Amino acid sequence: MTSSARITEIYPTDRVTLREVGLRDGLQMVRSFPSTAAKKNWLELERAAGVRHFEIGSFLPAARYPQFADLDEMISTTSSMDGVHSSALTLNERGLASAFETDINEIVCVISATEEHSQANMRRSREAAVDLVRQAAEMRKQSSQKAVINAAVAMAFGCSIAGRVDPAEVLRLAEACLEAGADIVGIADTVGYAGPDQVAGLASDMTALCGDLPFIVHLHDTRGMAIANASAALDAGARVLDGSLGGLGGCPFAPGATGNVVMEDLAFLCETKGFETGIDLAALTAVRSVPTAEMPDEKLYGAIARAGTPDWKT
Amino acid sequence: MTSSARITEIYPTDRVTLREVGLRDGLQMVRSFPSTAAKKNWLELERAAGVRHFEIGSFLPAARYPQFADLDEMISTTSSMDGVHSSALTLNERGLASAFETDINEIVCVISATEEHSQANMRRSREAAVDLVRQAAEMRKQSSQKAVINAAVAMAFGCSIAGRVDPAEVLRLAEACLEAGADIVGIADTVGYAGPDQVAGLASDMTALCGDLPFIVHLHDTRGMAIANASAALDAGARVLDGSLGGLGGCPFAPGATGNVVMEDLAFLCETKGFETGIDLAALTAVRSVPTAEMPDEKLYGAIARAGTPDWKT
Repeated sequence: MTSSARITEIYPTDRVTLREVGLRDGLQMVRSFPSTAAKKNWLELERAAGVRHFEIGSFLPAARYPQFADLDEMISTTSSMDGVHSSALTLNERGLASAFETDINEIVCVISATEEHSQANMRRSREAAVDLVRQAAEMRKQSSQKAVINAAVAMAFGCSIAGRVDPAEVLRLAEACLEAGADIVGIADTVGYAGPDQVAGLASDMTALCGDLPFIVHLHDTRGMAIANASAALDAGARVLDGSLGGLGGCPFAPGATGNVVMEDLAFLCETKGFETGIDLAALTAVRSVPTAEMPDEKLYGAIARAGTPDWKT
Repeated sequence: MTSSARITEIYPTDRVTLREVGLRDGLQMVRSFPSTAAKKNWLELERAAGVRHFEIGSFLPAARYPQFADLDEMISTTSSMDGVHSSALTLNERGLASAFETDINEIVCVISATEEHSQANMRRSREAAVDLVRQAAEMRKQSSQKAVINAAVAMAFGCSIAGRVDPAEVLRLAEACLEAGADIVGIADTVGYAGPDQVAGLASDMTALCGDLPFIVHLHDTRGMAIANASAALDAGARVLDGSLGGLGGCPFAPGATGNVVMEDLAFLCETKGFETGIDLAALTAVRSVPTAEMPDEKLYGAIARAGTPDWKT
């Protein structure tokens, strides 16, 4: 297991880290996607704006997911970029095996909060999904590739198939993932069901569960609550949040589900709350030119991009 | 002065009241505006959806503000509607005199938080604006018209002209308005500068200042923070919030400032936080058909209208 010292170097708990997931979650469902050159440009521009953590693809069959066919090249790119931490999704054993043949810095495994969604989405039980985390940790022991193991609990605030989700069940799964060898766990509002009080509750419990270890909060703005939910998560001790440039993204299992929380607005929220993120908002907003040019049919969201930051005069 | 018993009948402090300001603030800057018949339809539909408090216009010269030329007819309409509380804006002595000739239930006076904005917006000092509140209270004493006097502090979280605003100054003005005879005071993020921690701070101070009396929080979503700010205000004790159907509205003194907080999303936020508002979200969302048909060039905002409420199954 990666030592807790190492994970808090990657995700320090005394500041806020924003993970850009637009190049993975944001491209999951799009009809057209950026060229590899444009993706590299996106990475470079967003790194220059101060972002350091990028989810850059999924280890999935290139024939079915052409948007991630260039994952190897994306990994080479991030590996050559100073201070950049890359992650990618794996959904099964084959994906895990592929991941350990690369220099990816972080391998993301997904566990559904509900049995119903687990079977529908991954065709395996939740316990089998936790076993995959255990397998990832075992493979790392045998390998020179020492990637961080990230276990993300999807549908943690409500499930489009099963409805309500008991927070105790999410905590049980998060704890099981940590015991199975995950270095960091995440809670995802995959279909945007959560409100801020619900997020405050589960994030507080996660803060208690994880102690000195960071955990990740992944929010969708489906019902307009994402920034309020992020604020509540930060208040409850969360220090690592996912965001997506222009709010790109969605979930194939949630009809009408719109994008991830908008990265630019999330960075502004952190600023208003006095959290250092190292992000230059104007530079971050300018990166939107890449998806705008490459995916003219995709709608980008975000208020900071439209209105700019307040003019405080001083 | 209206007794505190009366004001808490109108704005009970043991539940949340959402004030629809779309028919006033929402129409302030639009190029075209709904017909009087359509406005009445809007009122009727939104009342049926559970909203009871409506800001329906401004006492301004009809020649310059044709969108409010039908204010008398709007007042007759709300007066005939069971349980509806109407309010309208006055900016000067002439407006006050007109208001006292009507059956409007609430007269809104505006005080700028900064001297610079007060001079630019109202061509009078802040103290003169407080004097107008005092004059309104005096006129009520002499009149059979016993309207509620509402004093709204604009630019309370930051000013597009002066920049930062000292919360102590906002509290001083709010207290001066109460002493001058206002029944209820409000704090407005007129240009959408606020973040949730700032709102939590000032709303807590207002809760302390107002004691058993309600106060109003008026938010704009210019920078995507409005729902997070509303959540923070509710947590800090605010129980009366303004909203606008579809987020209609803006401020002529704030370039790029987009609309008021979206009423539908605000009502959903309250629901997630366990606050009863008496509002039927599906019925409220359906009212958007009125501004959509009457003002096809105006963009409506809102996530609940797009995604609906979560399907919790039970």
